[in-house]
Amino acid sequence: MTGPDDTAGLAAAIRDGRIRPDAIVAILGKTEGNGCVNDFTRGFAVQSLRLELARHLPPAAVDRIALVMSGGTEGALAPHALVIEVRPEDQERAGPALAVGQAVTRDIRPEELGRRAQAEVVAEAVAKVTADLGISDPADIHFVQIKCPLLTMERVAEARARGVTTATTDTLKSMGLSRGASALGVALALGEVPDAAVTDAAIGTDRSLYSTRASTSAGVELLGHEIVVMGMSPRWSGPLRIDHAVMADGIDIEPVRAALARLGLASPGQLPAADRDRLVALLAKAEAPSTGRMRGFRHTMLDDSDISSTRHARGFAAGALASLVGHAEIFVSGGAEHQGPDGGGPVALIVR
Amino acid sequence: MTGPDDTAGLAAAIRDGRIRPDAIVAILGKTEGNGCVNDFTRGFAVQSLRLELARHLPPAAVDRIALVMSGGTEGALAPHALVIEVRPEDQERAGPALAVGQAVTRDIRPEELGRRAQAEVVAEAVAKVTADLGISDPADIHFVQIKCPLLTMERVAEARARGVTTATTDTLKSMGLSRGASALGVALALGEVPDAAVTDAAIGTDRSLYSTRASTSAGVELLGHEIVVMGMSPRWSGPLRIDHAVMADGIDIEPVRAALARLGLASPGQLPAADRDRLVALLAKAEAPSTGRMRGFRHTMLDDSDISSTRHARGFAAGALASLVGHAEIFVSGGAEHQGPDGGGPVALIVR
Amino acid sequence: MTGPDDTAGLAAAIRDGRIRPDAIVAILGKTEGNGCVNDFTRGFAVQSLRLELARHLPPAAVDRIALVMSGGTEGALAPHALVIEVRPEDQERAGPALAVGQAVTRDIRPEELGRRAQAEVVAEAVAKVTADLGISDPADIHFVQIKCPLLTMERVAEARARGVTTATTDTLKSMGLSRGASALGVALALGEVPDAAVTDAAIGTDRSLYSTRASTSAGVELLGHEIVVMGMSPRWSGPLRIDHAVMADGIDIEPVRAALARLGLASPGQLPAADRDRLVALLAKAEAPSTGRMRGFRHTMLDDSDISSTRHARGFAAGALASLVGHAEIFVSGGAEHQGPDGGGPVALIVR
Amino acid sequence: MTGPDDTAGLAAAIRDGRIRPDAIVAILGKTEGNGCVNDFTRGFAVQSLRLELARHLPPAAVDRIALVMSGGTEGALAPHALVIEVRPEDQERAGPALAVGQAVTRDIRPEELGRRAQAEVVAEAVAKVTADLGISDPADIHFVQIKCPLLTMERVAEARARGVTTATTDTLKSMGLSRGASALGVALALGEVPDAAVTDAAIGTDRSLYSTRASTSAGVELLGHEIVVMGMSPRWSGPLRIDHAVMADGIDIEPVRAALARLGLASPGQLPAADRDRLVALLAKAEAPSTGRMRGFRHTMLDDSDISSTRHARGFAAGALASLVGHAEIFVSGGAEHQGPDGGGPVALIVR
Repeated sequence: MTGPDDTAGLAAAIRDGRIRPDAIVAILGKTEGNGCVNDFTRGFAVQSLRLELARHLPPAAVDRIALVMSGGTEGALAPHALVIEVRPEDQERAGPALAVGQAVTRDIRPEELGRRAQAEVVAEAVAKVTADLGISDPADIHFVQIKCPLLTMERVAEARARGVTTATTDTLKSMGLSRGASALGVALALGEVPDAAVTDAAIGTDRSLYSTRASTSAGVELLGHEIVVMGMSPRWSGPLRIDHAVMADGIDIEPVRAALARLGLASPGQLPAADRDRLVALLAKAEAPSTGRMRGFRHTMLDDSDISSTRHARGFAAGALASLVGHAEIFVSGGAEHQGPDGGGPVALIVR
Repeated sequence: MTGPDDTAGLAAAIRDGRIRPDAIVAILGKTEGNGCVNDFTRGFAVQSLRLELARHLPPAAVDRIALVMSGGTEGALAPHALVIEVRPEDQERAGPALAVGQAVTRDIRPEELGRRAQAEVVAEAVAKVTADLGISDPADIHFVQIKCPLLTMERVAEARARGVTTATTDTLKSMGLSRGASALGVALALGEVPDAAVTDAAIGTDRSLYSTRASTSAGVELLGHEIVVMGMSPRWSGPLRIDHAVMADGIDIEPVRAALARLGLASPGQLPAADRDRLVALLAKAEAPSTGRMRGFRHTMLDDSDISSTRHARGFAAGALASLVGHAEIFVSGGAEHQGPDGGGPVALIVR
Repeated sequence: MTGPDDTAGLAAAIRDGRIRPDAIVAILGKTEGNGCVNDFTRGFAVQSLRLELARHLPPAAVDRIALVMSGGTEGALAPHALVIEVRPEDQERAGPALAVGQAVTRDIRPEELGRRAQAEVVAEAVAKVTADLGISDPADIHFVQIKCPLLTMERVAEARARGVTTATTDTLKSMGLSRGASALGVALALGEVPDAAVTDAAIGTDRSLYSTRASTSAGVELLGHEIVVMGMSPRWSGPLRIDHAVMADGIDIEPVRAALARLGLASPGQLPAADRDRLVALLAKAEAPSTGRMRGFRHTMLDDSDISSTRHARGFAAGALASLVGHAEIFVSGGAEHQGPDGGGPVALIVR
Repeated sequence: MTGPDDTAGLAAAIRDGRIRPDAIVAILGKTEGNGCVNDFTRGFAVQSLRLELARHLPPAAVDRIALVMSGGTEGALAPHALVIEVRPEDQERAGPALAVGQAVTRDIRPEELGRRAQAEVVAEAVAKVTADLGISDPADIHFVQIKCPLLTMERVAEARARGVTTATTDTLKSMGLSRGASALGVALALGEVPDAAVTDAAIGTDRSLYSTRASTSAGVELLGHEIVVMGMSPRWSGPLRIDHAVMADGIDIEPVRAALARLGLASPGQLPAADRDRLVALLAKAEAPSTGRMRGFRHTMLDDSDISSTRHARGFAAGALASLVGHAEIFVSGGAEHQGPDGGGPVALIVR
């Protein structure tokens, strides 16, 4: 994409028959804003994609497509969109193969954001999609992408006017709480944490609680959640396989290398150019270690008042992952609260 | 270092006898400023180190030590200082081994900065140090670190008042021109480029001209150049060896892996924890490809008006290199003009 | 506006009959991006306004409306849009009154940007609109707003591929050159500078050349120019009057106070709340003095590598102007190259 | 000052006899960092000033001088230092006149920061200095400048290791809490708020509590507080007078104009050049309104993830105040938590 509003690639793929608009269930995009509160590139991309899709689909069909834009292309990260289709014929042959489902939750109120209430809303939706995909073992779920809301000054003021408090009044901080609560919703649905552990107080503070498969991204442009669930289903077929790894920190690439090997892409060094086309998508989360240290050495990401730590972490982990797979058209999203261990994050890999 | 003024580590090493102050010839440091024009962390670190050194050495001895601070610890890059000693006993045994020499050039005038005149000042100094080290083959020089000046609004105005023009009036741009001219000075000294090719017009524009061993860093706190030359000399001995690699872009880590192997640190994946202590220093340059693309995919580093491309490039390449060697206490410096090919940069490795 | 895509205010005004969509000739907006190269809030606002206008007008009519978005709401500057209508009945009664005209130029080539060729394209268009408005004395033109293009890495590469050079390869710098060349086009049309003085070399360097009525703003979303001309025409009537002032620097508010007095809004201190509604628009340009000093004291705007000087200058001048008129819903645009004297800028005032 | 380490002006003033080093009690400086967590220009300036002072004074005398650096020179704010002397002969003649006193508190623990405990430490010190100055009516205190500590990741971790919690773990937020608690300490000492109102919970949240004379600034370089108190004392004489005003928001300059008039500098518009020398100092606080609106219009300072709201607010209020007094070598400090009403701040004026 040459800009957030560049949908020429999608238009060409539809025109050439490479993408069938009626089969699209979700589009995941990296856009080139700051990935923080005042990142309008996400909304701009969503509006532009909807205008393009409306040229091919009726309004109700456009509304059903999950459009998850993640802001921030630090370092050499390439702005791009990943268009996910579900073709009926892929469900006719024997599985297992990549299965994709999606859901939209109700809008949440400002005072629910960053609290147990938000996690529950998410958990319910993820559980339902998992069942619909025919996946009975939560271990077969490898990636749950969630676009979740954030607080703006307007939304905080609206809550205050009603006499209720929000989990925070700091808009940037609200993004982290929303991402964290959404991720713990996934963890609840997948049985990764004890139900009783997910309390208002634990969200944003207890870093021992996390999902290894959630990837959440906050945006100003919605009030509910757009959820995309991916896993290996015995009822689905097709050429794609998915697996995941968990990085303990931003340079912990060996678990990712191992996951690539499990998917048939073993490589001692950087993935050779010839194999790169088989890697359809790499979807990772990154964040700065809250301890102020990585492998014993001090980092400065959390003390930097010029650049948000989420921007630092994305660019740094992107360098590590791109050096493994050989290019930077990958999906690295910042803000990994309760997504993987403190300072690390989940990585999903889709391979042809 | 817990801050630019933290010299406690140096003080302790001197107190414990691990470092002999009279043997110090240079200190290379990464400090946590923005690495651009208004980065005062470099000057602060230099002043703090000089105060500490003055507790152990007479003023003239302090003045002889090259203090090269490079600003910018994006991503998880760890602020740290590399203290380089030359011990007389290391020159008594048979070589070859790491040899280190240094020089300070005269102050240059604002109108010389970023032009052939600056390159010549540097080339002369590098050639002299090389000879002093007993190195006759330029191929045995593996790293030339240069701290060079930049233009401030005050310096531009001073030149203008004298009726002469400077190569640029843009202070941020002046940093790039100074780094580039200094690097081409190294290239001249090492025979890497034809003498006639280094013209005023070529500096900052002809990216086919570069040194594979220069690492230059601009700072507001000096008007001349502080130069540190490292190579393998038959006349030096000691436990350290040096080699270098050239990255074609920020994720081109395989040449670095090969250089590590030549130095006895072969590893198919990330360098194992047990071997990390043997890697004494990794010194790299990074920059954004001027084409707007890396390996065919668009990057946004040069279109970002919030974060300088040098900051993006440092954090990204640091992720790639740290994922290779297993930690981020490495020296990655931004602004690789005429240092390695467009978008790439030289990497020096010192191994015990 | 609550965001770049918030057109609810416009929709309500149209619904209530306060604005007649077919009478709209231009919309000038301040949007909350960084106002620099990667500011997509301008394009997002334009796309959103066009979607709203398309609900009320046929496509060709939408295309005729000049949509000039200026990014950057530093300090307390309020994101807002100024909708300019031309109603036929305002041209029936005796003048003089505010007259508004507009034009769109052809797309310019990357190599024309920032050079004499661009100024000529603009001058021709401004002269034509002035004549069409029935204004014979250039002194009666008080404001010429121009949205002009910029260079992106893609556009520079396209020119390079054709073997031609652009005025700069620095995308941020290209914005300044484009704004400057456009402003000198206005100066040519209004007879403010000698024709021969406007050379390729003078653009961006000779700060003695400037227009006192141009306000130019660069955006990534167009390749030509959208021009809005405002003046006092003997042939136009209606309730609005326009005048202008020139600030010598960002705090030179006394000329603006004098212009307000000429328009009937005299006030020794801050404009009283009761008078504020009569001030329909304040449109100003701001920039950092290139000398590095303002009234003898050093400023740091040009040495700051974290925040563009255009952002500093906008927020600072906005504080000065808002303290004069009593609120910050004013249009302060950065980058005043060749618009007013070095470090200052023109200010247009529309009063009811 | 040409940089944080430029003490040439102070050195020249001492050499020329304009400043007597043994009479210096405090130096207030504006330095050109970001004014946030990782602003090392404050520490660099302090270290540089101490080196200069040590050339003229014994170490213990240097230690007694309060060095209060406030980072952030947004807009055209000029980096400068205000050197405050107390000359014995000024206490011989009849008053009243400007009186200056100072104190240093004990270091506070991380868990005290931003809580009632910090306010009490400050209140006790302010009360003692007030009494020492011979000022019995708190209304005669016009300015209390406090340099207070902040939390770094290291300090938070140290507290956590001891099993105690800090008021926040967000380092940038800790600056606001520390400034707020210190300001409420002043309010307690001056009887501006009820004693019982200053609770842990109120600090940082109850914006109805504030001092009209506190100006607090957080820095990484200390663990206690450096306090400078200024007022009109019947026991002091000399050529200087002090008064203060309270701005309700960043453009509320009429109260400041009135205070100038009380001090003999009445002016309907901008202070004329001839009178500017009599204004020795303008010391103001600025902050973004927490409501997201200023005078009814939305501002974007609190939603901006690229530039801290403190930087926006400083540059904007600086424009307003500089347009009143005619230049920008004024002391505008960001972060006015509990210093003046929400979105506004105190302004102290010293006139000869």
